[in-house]
Amino acid sequence: MTQIALLTDFGHRDHYVGLMRSIIAHRAPSTPIIDLCHEAPAQDLASGAYLLYSAAPYLPTGSIIVAVIDPGVGTSRRPIAVQSQGYTFILPDNGLLSLWLSKHPAQAAVLLDNPAHQRHPISATFHGRDIFAPAAGALAAGFTLSQLGSAISTSSLIIDPALTLATPTPARQLIAGILHIDHFGNLITNAHIEQLDALGPAQQLNIWLNELRIPLKQTFGQVSPGQPVAYIGSFGHLEIAIRDGDAARAFGVDKRATLTITST
Amino acid sequence: MTQIALLTDFGHRDHYVGLMRSIIAHRAPSTPIIDLCHEAPAQDLASGAYLLYSAAPYLPTGSIIVAVIDPGVGTSRRPIAVQSQGYTFILPDNGLLSLWLSKHPAQAAVLLDNPAHQRHPISATFHGRDIFAPAAGALAAGFTLSQLGSAISTSSLIIDPALTLATPTPARQLIAGILHIDHFGNLITNAHIEQLDALGPAQQLNIWLNELRIPLKQTFGQVSPGQPVAYIGSFGHLEIAIRDGDAARAFGVDKRATLTITST
Amino acid sequence: MTQIALLTDFGHRDHYVGLMRSIIAHRAPSTPIIDLCHEAPAQDLASGAYLLYSAAPYLPTGSIIVAVIDPGVGTSRRPIAVQSQGYTFILPDNGLLSLWLSKHPAQAAVLLDNPAHQRHPISATFHGRDIFAPAAGALAAGFTLSQLGSAISTSSLIIDPALTLATPTPARQLIAGILHIDHFGNLITNAHIEQLDALGPAQQLNIWLNELRIPLKQTFGQVSPGQPVAYIGSFGHLEIAIRDGDAARAFGVDKRATLTITST
Repeated sequence: MTQIALLTDFGHRDHYVGLMRSIIAHRAPSTPIIDLCHEAPAQDLASGAYLLYSAAPYLPTGSIIVAVIDPGVGTSRRPIAVQSQGYTFILPDNGLLSLWLSKHPAQAAVLLDNPAHQRHPISATFHGRDIFAPAAGALAAGFTLSQLGSAISTSSLIIDPALTLATPTPARQLIAGILHIDHFGNLITNAHIEQLDALGPAQQLNIWLNELRIPLKQTFGQVSPGQPVAYIGSFGHLEIAIRDGDAARAFGVDKRATLTITST
Repeated sequence: MTQIALLTDFGHRDHYVGLMRSIIAHRAPSTPIIDLCHEAPAQDLASGAYLLYSAAPYLPTGSIIVAVIDPGVGTSRRPIAVQSQGYTFILPDNGLLSLWLSKHPAQAAVLLDNPAHQRHPISATFHGRDIFAPAAGALAAGFTLSQLGSAISTSSLIIDPALTLATPTPARQLIAGILHIDHFGNLITNAHIEQLDALGPAQQLNIWLNELRIPLKQTFGQVSPGQPVAYIGSFGHLEIAIRDGDAARAFGVDKRATLTITST
Repeated sequence: MTQIALLTDFGHRDHYVGLMRSIIAHRAPSTPIIDLCHEAPAQDLASGAYLLYSAAPYLPTGSIIVAVIDPGVGTSRRPIAVQSQGYTFILPDNGLLSLWLSKHPAQAAVLLDNPAHQRHPISATFHGRDIFAPAAGALAAGFTLSQLGSAISTSSLIIDPALTLATPTPARQLIAGILHIDHFGNLITNAHIEQLDALGPAQQLNIWLNELRIPLKQTFGQVSPGQPVAYIGSFGHLEIAIRDGDAARAFGVDKRATLTITST
């Protein structure tokens, strides 16, 4: 099924998302458009990389995924389309695809430089409207990837190591960073269940956020209200929450915080 | 008309709503999906109960209403589907349906335990994706309520008295609580116009919020900018606003505040 | 193509938008509905006037645009429908259409007073549900403008001069106001590129926000992170941003701030 999914940091205070949808609908009137989210943290590539890579597997094969978190809009960063594992990603080449590409190969990529599938004049600040939406609409309407622009090497795509999974240290420790803080204030780390499993059985893991040791449970409902809890979230990542509360606010942490995970 | 309406506290910072939509669309591609709202106050069952009960009458008969405000996700609380007055509600059995059920009988209810209409493995923290969305999609695609899971007694459904309408005191007073604070900071109380009518004619009612007596008008435009005003809102409940302002912020009140309504 | 576009300040905390959509869909099930935005600043007619006038040219001719920012709901302000340049605007007559009407003539206008295309009883506080949505649905379903209500003179429509473009002073200065602060904190002024062009060539323009002179560039990526920058935004207006930051917050300005633009 062809379906277009949108993921941006544009918010709902302005008409930016609405105009992208209108431009896509004009080119591909019968293609369903799904909003993945539009309140992704502003200009935050780590959040974007996590949301993009974790959402894609739940979308039907053939989906066109348009992701616009684009602090470098209008500079030399490349607007691109990438085919990988049955999906087409349309986005700036700024690292947003790092987590996905660290797990999955890309089959083809193009620079979105065909003027026939752009809106003109192209503004310097809103490529969502002038480049990414028209490209998505064209693809959904039946144009091929190669008609969107010049082929580029898949090995040239930017993968930012800071936007990938945690790397275990030689000392059987995992130093995990925070990829995303969700709507509920839950901290979503870059430690994946497969990495925790490699470290040791769940009951032997110790999870530290600064000086605080946090118990590992199945779900936040298993601790008392107000208590911190670690659990494997619904996308396979280690998450930290406060039951019935907001962990980010309660701990006063931001995305620079790190966790240490060891096995006894 | 079959239509699916979604009401959650998931916000738009994450892909949670988008993935629910995608999963429903995969199972029932031609069913329209309407977003009632997704910024309902986090984990706030009173707001959810109010929004759910007040929205339903404006939806076409046959609508499937998926409501996910679910602080107990992954614990023993039951995921259910309830048929009532031509609507099917798909939600956790945690009191969200209290206001509706205090006014309308339920005709049938099931526990959503049929594995054929769940996503596996079921995560402990995102039943919206793994249980509620698949159930809604299945129902829209033509499966029957009884195919979604085991029948349960409608009398077993949780009705939390704290999430229903205000009860008049013997002294002809109404002590009203606040069910919901809306986007504009308006306070929506659990006092319904029928209860006010029973108390006395509008011009004889006295409405007190703490020490402050608030005039009852038809609309906020009838007082001067910055002035407080009580009125019967567009869903039949007594509301308190500040003209051109934010009453919740101006009064410094939260949902624990109460109003006293008397008739002279 | 008939398409309905919605623009409100209703937010997503409540079911207000969802119910408008459901009511429109009931009357015109096959008409696509696009959300332009629903987090427009509450009761802010300048933001609304800007968003409405700048969005319309990107929508297909024939679009029905429903705009509800309506602090005077329930008072004597008129609910209207206006045909202009192939679009139909459905909105309160409170100045929201000022920027559009200052640039484009209206061909026809009606007062939305035909009870057949209203929901009854009409609430005093939610004309979006009871008047504007039913009118939009009726129009999309094939009723004509004149069937929605009594004709009114297009010259009677409210144009608030404070909600139009900046006026140059005799001294070749442009004193610009701020129409809208967007999701990223960018300040969108009422100075249009045509007005700047009339003042002098870009390299000779001086842009002052209070004591601060701000360099004019093509895009924010052309200054260093944290630096202020002026640029012509994607809708032709002069905008002020902080690269990778939030200009409104950093400068501590609100919409009462003014800019002075001169040519050397």
